[in-house]
Amino acid sequence: MTDSTEAPYVAVIFTSQHTGEDLRGYAAAAARMIELAAEQPGYRGMDTVHGADGAGITVSYWATDADALGWKRVTEHLAAQEQGRDTWYSSYRVRVATVHRDYSFPRS
Amino acid sequence: MTDSTEAPYVAVIFTSQHTGEDLRGYAAAAARMIELAAEQPGYRGMDTVHGADGAGITVSYWATDADALGWKRVTEHLAAQEQGRDTWYSSYRVRVATVHRDYSFPRS
Repeated sequence: MTDSTEAPYVAVIFTSQHTGEDLRGYAAAAARMIELAAEQPGYRGMDTVHGADGAGITVSYWATDADALGWKRVTEHLAAQEQGRDTWYSSYRVRVATVHRDYSFPRS
Repeated sequence: MTDSTEAPYVAVIFTSQHTGEDLRGYAAAAARMIELAAEQPGYRGMDTVHGADGAGITVSYWATDADALGWKRVTEHLAAQEQGRDTWYSSYRVRVATVHRDYSFPRS
């Protein structure tokens, strides 16, 4: 993500376990969601990592809690969430958090 | 992590890029840090995922901000952080956040 975001801002921490089903459809939807999120008001970036065992963590960053909620409710995103529960994820957890300290290496 | 933790609690979001150097030493240290974190006051769990490209996200959960700070300052952890900057990580970023909403699928 860009380094211009200063705390406080909002992080949505999405941890998931993939079923292993429909990997091609999932990959296409995941790429589309990254694209779509970046178009939303208050978007500040995203970090996403997937392991070989189907575990994933995606953290998206938002200017405000209202922006994070807005992203959750985008129609095309709601459809992906439903397909996620039906097909792609055996489990997931979402945590919405306010970032109050932020530091990096190398120091920016 | 356990499902008994209720918001608010603290999440430390650690995103990193590995240099690819000393993978064996890194793996041993990472396993030790998971073990050591779990012994600290206020520890509430950890999620960690590493991708094939050397990107990683680890989120650790703590009862309070003071507990999260305490973990940062554990001597053996400080030594690992130094070795991380010297050898393992080309870059990382740490965000300390307060979780205020938390939901999961399947619903627990």
